[in-house]
Amino acid sequence: MQPASGAFADALRANLPDATFRDLDARYLEEPRGRWAGADGLLLAPATTDEVATIVRAAAGARVPVIPYGGGTGLVGGQVSADLPRPVILSLERMARIRDVDPTENAMTVEAGAILQTVQEAATAAGRLFPLTIAAQGSARIGGVLSTNAGGVNVLRYGNARELCLGVEAVLPDGSVLHGLSPLRKNNTGYDLRHLLIGAEGTLGIITAATLKLLPRPVRTGAAIMAVRDPAAAIDLLNLARDRIGEGVSAFELIGRTGLDFLAETMPDVRLPLGRPVWSVLIDLGLGASGDPAQALEDLFAAALDRDLVCDGTVAQSDAQRQDFWHLRESIPAANRKIGSVSSHDISVPIAAIPRFIAKAPAVIAAIGDFRINCFGHVGDGNLHYNVFPAPGRSRDDHEHQRDAIKTAVHDLVHAFGGSVSAEHGIGRLKVGDLERYGDPAKLAAMRAIKAALDPAGIMNPGAVLRG
Amino acid sequence: MQPASGAFADALRANLPDATFRDLDARYLEEPRGRWAGADGLLLAPATTDEVATIVRAAAGARVPVIPYGGGTGLVGGQVSADLPRPVILSLERMARIRDVDPTENAMTVEAGAILQTVQEAATAAGRLFPLTIAAQGSARIGGVLSTNAGGVNVLRYGNARELCLGVEAVLPDGSVLHGLSPLRKNNTGYDLRHLLIGAEGTLGIITAATLKLLPRPVRTGAAIMAVRDPAAAIDLLNLARDRIGEGVSAFELIGRTGLDFLAETMPDVRLPLGRPVWSVLIDLGLGASGDPAQALEDLFAAALDRDLVCDGTVAQSDAQRQDFWHLRESIPAANRKIGSVSSHDISVPIAAIPRFIAKAPAVIAAIGDFRINCFGHVGDGNLHYNVFPAPGRSRDDHEHQRDAIKTAVHDLVHAFGGSVSAEHGIGRLKVGDLERYGDPAKLAAMRAIKAALDPAGIMNPGAVLRG
Repeated sequence: MQPASGAFADALRANLPDATFRDLDARYLEEPRGRWAGADGLLLAPATTDEVATIVRAAAGARVPVIPYGGGTGLVGGQVSADLPRPVILSLERMARIRDVDPTENAMTVEAGAILQTVQEAATAAGRLFPLTIAAQGSARIGGVLSTNAGGVNVLRYGNARELCLGVEAVLPDGSVLHGLSPLRKNNTGYDLRHLLIGAEGTLGIITAATLKLLPRPVRTGAAIMAVRDPAAAIDLLNLARDRIGEGVSAFELIGRTGLDFLAETMPDVRLPLGRPVWSVLIDLGLGASGDPAQALEDLFAAALDRDLVCDGTVAQSDAQRQDFWHLRESIPAANRKIGSVSSHDISVPIAAIPRFIAKAPAVIAAIGDFRINCFGHVGDGNLHYNVFPAPGRSRDDHEHQRDAIKTAVHDLVHAFGGSVSAEHGIGRLKVGDLERYGDPAKLAAMRAIKAALDPAGIMNPGAVLRG
Repeated sequence: MQPASGAFADALRANLPDATFRDLDARYLEEPRGRWAGADGLLLAPATTDEVATIVRAAAGARVPVIPYGGGTGLVGGQVSADLPRPVILSLERMARIRDVDPTENAMTVEAGAILQTVQEAATAAGRLFPLTIAAQGSARIGGVLSTNAGGVNVLRYGNARELCLGVEAVLPDGSVLHGLSPLRKNNTGYDLRHLLIGAEGTLGIITAATLKLLPRPVRTGAAIMAVRDPAAAIDLLNLARDRIGEGVSAFELIGRTGLDFLAETMPDVRLPLGRPVWSVLIDLGLGASGDPAQALEDLFAAALDRDLVCDGTVAQSDAQRQDFWHLRESIPAANRKIGSVSSHDISVPIAAIPRFIAKAPAVIAAIGDFRINCFGHVGDGNLHYNVFPAPGRSRDDHEHQRDAIKTAVHDLVHAFGGSVSAEHGIGRLKVGDLERYGDPAKLAAMRAIKAALDPAGIMNPGAVLRG
């Protein structure tokens, strides 16, 4: 590959408006966890799909690497690289239009640079729901959200980013434009390139726009926190809830005692309605006009008590109280940051295996040293945030040398349970080795063949997902 | 490519049990509409994934074409070919095991040869729902269902086959085995090969097993038939229903007057509760334990009456009556067969465009000749069965010479509306020309590149989807 030289930039200037060329700001070379950094780059911010195509065509011709850049919120280093000849950093920030919102069609078409929260708000304004909800939604852009197949708290009910995308427009590595914007629910005409580009982290092309699925807004919402006997009881409670309430169960979050301890220690203003049970769950419902969420949750609690699944519980009596419950859940990551984790793990295991994983993992970690574990997450889809912290009185710096051993131990255990070492964040540059270690050989070989077929020069986000 | 010669078969016999080798029965060379026929083939029915791999490896080495064969119910000729050197016909019928049903995990793993109805029944026996429902479910096998991304009446609520599959095991064109069986809901580790194989109609490999998603069974069900002012009112009614009832709307089927006329003419025992309205809809609900479907439908009717969307309606007062309503809907294809269509079209258009399509298409067809049109289908996902019949007193044979003109006129109009000329049946061999005519050039180029990368010898179902 070749660097994006001054001559390369000059040649592009002849075909692109001046506004495309941006001074490189340090933020394009950083990522949120500070573990990866870019060295340099030619920052380009095209305003149209055609301009993206012009850039990619030129890069393919000159064999210059291209790093697509969305909101910069990714947690696995997919958006920065210091290991390449000076790349084009192609930011989608100027392609942020909501092209169309159609409530009759239950679809909206947005450009890749649209901020997720803006997309949610545009759906709400049209009386519809775009359900994808993640912590970074105020700055994450929809192209990155799709390229990493983001997850979040509502996957149980509505699926990942993948399931919420009806069609994509993309610039492929040769600069051709894939015209795949469509609201069609049924369209069996050839290979599904949409799903190949979603989750490919910019290595097979650049998503420039997407048609997204809109859903009915739940009319009546409710929430409860229930203390459960143990993680197995949490899963039985989830299935009991879904048997009784069906798809109305929007979220089902597991909360471990350590998270509540951290809240009490670092954020004493956060109300803990049940005190600090060893295991509890936050259940969120969204029902139709004739539903009664509070009644449904009270009935659920009674049925769960009969089955000895729960020992305490409280149902939100108002929307304000429901917000309080969510504030508790959403404050846990902030409390984690105040304590300072040694190693964080974005993992999933089969739902039925969660109790066994939770029972077994502490011994694996204790074999490495004395740590505290905060286990919480989206139990409804098997996705745990399994984070390891220093014992009281120590800091993360004391354990820097043990991080790799902890990560490997946790990932090995996850893999042994048939789980995934990247549930919702992706591979990026951080987990390329994990993919090689745990990935199916036939899958890796097919991935490499597809990459070589669509991007023979290897210019699209080189080093992400697959080793360059 | 080379034929599956006697020497090729003999070499395989050394590595495969005798039971793998079957006498070729005529049914493996036929398809339901009788428009395509196979000429010959070496029929192999392996019992294990390893045996499938052995066959494919040998075929790849000898460059012998392989046609995967499921239930043989496909409607686009994907399962037969007369244009190839004698192929291996690889039937999955002996791999029909339900490997595992796990209600806690809400997942089941089945072999590709399992009959769809058997899969549904196994889910039901475990207290769960596998919602995919198609006319051919008594003989369609799950490998074919996935390879063609089958649709059906419940796509509105539950999605196509694609959305109901969590993972696949497949033999790739080089004979390697992709081990992708997994119940994980969140797993962002590299390209999604599952979605590439689903809908590829056996051209990129052979799905040998799948992990399927199970759902809660609706506790209380109900149905109504309502006469609507026009197709636009049907769509407004659908959105009104979803605004009020959310995901509880399981199906929403449009029924045109012609279909009711055909029923009255050919199947007079079928009860028509509202007589023969010009346009009517069948609405099916499945709610949780606290829902009241009949009440919800009555409230919906009242709200729709206020908005002048409906002019008549009846809500099922019992499960038997609900079955009657569905019997009406499901008898329409049988009535169609008795009348005998000149040309049938499996199309979809954006939901919002349905009224304009329905308004415009008759003139396009009338320009070709004097025909009757039966338009019905899954309006909730834009999927219409738009079928053209002879005028009374004439037969389909009188119009054989006009079939291509009708098909082209309908497909051109569908394409102009941003629709799909294959909503749920696939491309097979029937619509290869349509894909070339209407498909996006960048998509076709990428499909060809992927096909060449994964199947360089071009042995996997040659001539289906892409011209060989």
